[in-house]
Amino acid sequence: MRVKILVVGANGQIGKHLVKTIQNSGSHTARAMIRKQEQAAYFNELGAEVSVTDVEGEIEDIAKAAEGVDAIVFTAGSGPHTGKDKTIMVDLDGAVKTIEAAKAAGVNRFIMVSSFDTRREAIQEAPPSFAPYVAAKHYADEWLKRTDLNYTIVHPGALVNEPGTGLVQAAQEVDRGAVPREDVAHVIFECLENDSTIGKQFQVVTGSTPIKEAIQSL
Amino acid sequence: MRVKILVVGANGQIGKHLVKTIQNSGSHTARAMIRKQEQAAYFNELGAEVSVTDVEGEIEDIAKAAEGVDAIVFTAGSGPHTGKDKTIMVDLDGAVKTIEAAKAAGVNRFIMVSSFDTRREAIQEAPPSFAPYVAAKHYADEWLKRTDLNYTIVHPGALVNEPGTGLVQAAQEVDRGAVPREDVAHVIFECLENDSTIGKQFQVVTGSTPIKEAIQSL
Repeated sequence: MRVKILVVGANGQIGKHLVKTIQNSGSHTARAMIRKQEQAAYFNELGAEVSVTDVEGEIEDIAKAAEGVDAIVFTAGSGPHTGKDKTIMVDLDGAVKTIEAAKAAGVNRFIMVSSFDTRREAIQEAPPSFAPYVAAKHYADEWLKRTDLNYTIVHPGALVNEPGTGLVQAAQEVDRGAVPREDVAHVIFECLENDSTIGKQFQVVTGSTPIKEAIQSL
Repeated sequence: MRVKILVVGANGQIGKHLVKTIQNSGSHTARAMIRKQEQAAYFNELGAEVSVTDVEGEIEDIAKAAEGVDAIVFTAGSGPHTGKDKTIMVDLDGAVKTIEAAKAAGVNRFIMVSSFDTRREAIQEAPPSFAPYVAAKHYADEWLKRTDLNYTIVHPGALVNEPGTGLVQAAQEVDRGAVPREDVAHVIFECLENDSTIGKQFQVVTGSTPIKEAIQSL
């Protein structure tokens, strides 16, 4: 079955890798949700659909962007170093609005790109400058878990820009480590391919298992 | 029955009025949860108990502060003008931790002092500088509503420091207006007195109905 995936935060670094992976799969197609028309060229070149929709906007607009897709990946992020207003408005509220938009649009499959550790303990242990980001991701994850959506929550380690190795370690808990954004994109793609990841969350860092195998055996 | 109430955020302006109201009631007693020992004098003078516990700390510590009380009032707030990191860590995460602490301590009655309008629409319509605060209060309220606690959520209008008039308008929706913090404290006290407010939320501004009557007829 040809599957269409809305990538929210497509213009981010993971988002760009993911749209490329989806388009190159031959089997699936991506709709890139981006904030500005100027960001469209990259996605047009890949042959992906584009929806210019702001995750800080209304739920109805995000739901419109999600019309007719089979799955949504939320990989938008203000990042840990923007103003904390964006941490609330994008990482938390943007995520929740996307979840609500998924429901409104009848899209049941939802992949959340979270932070490595978003448990209560992680909020308490995080340095003060990082804790608000962890908290925002914690509440976004909690919101998703309390829905009836077919969710998967991906908790990647420290994101780096090195080319992907194709080899990861993925489990409910793994030791802290780095992981290339390109590999995270492939991990997300494999989640979309494997319904056995529904209702699960896992941490992922660079390891020694091919991504496909690592995700299948979660 | 003599009722003991934990006031979280007791050193705030509403909190101080509230502890005084409780202590002066003759029937109830307050435990003031404050961040610093230096803040204790005011509460000692009123004959209130004091617990030096930080709402940014661990749930277990807040639960310990709540041991043996019959109700908890959350009126801590970073306010809309502090750094947005505190908006997440106090207004949202501090509130949620207090809710979880209530559960852990077996305290079923919970009064939340919220913002005037915390609905989804209010987040979208708020000016960008204020929206993160509204969002934080929105998610705190949502978290509380999804518990089994006997909650009441108070949505006061624009808070002013004028002496209370004792007269308010309270309903699910009222026109925007101001309300003295002293009156809000009395409104909270009347919520504690009226179990008919359990499971309800309401907006309150200065009006023409005596507080007791306004809360009883909610």
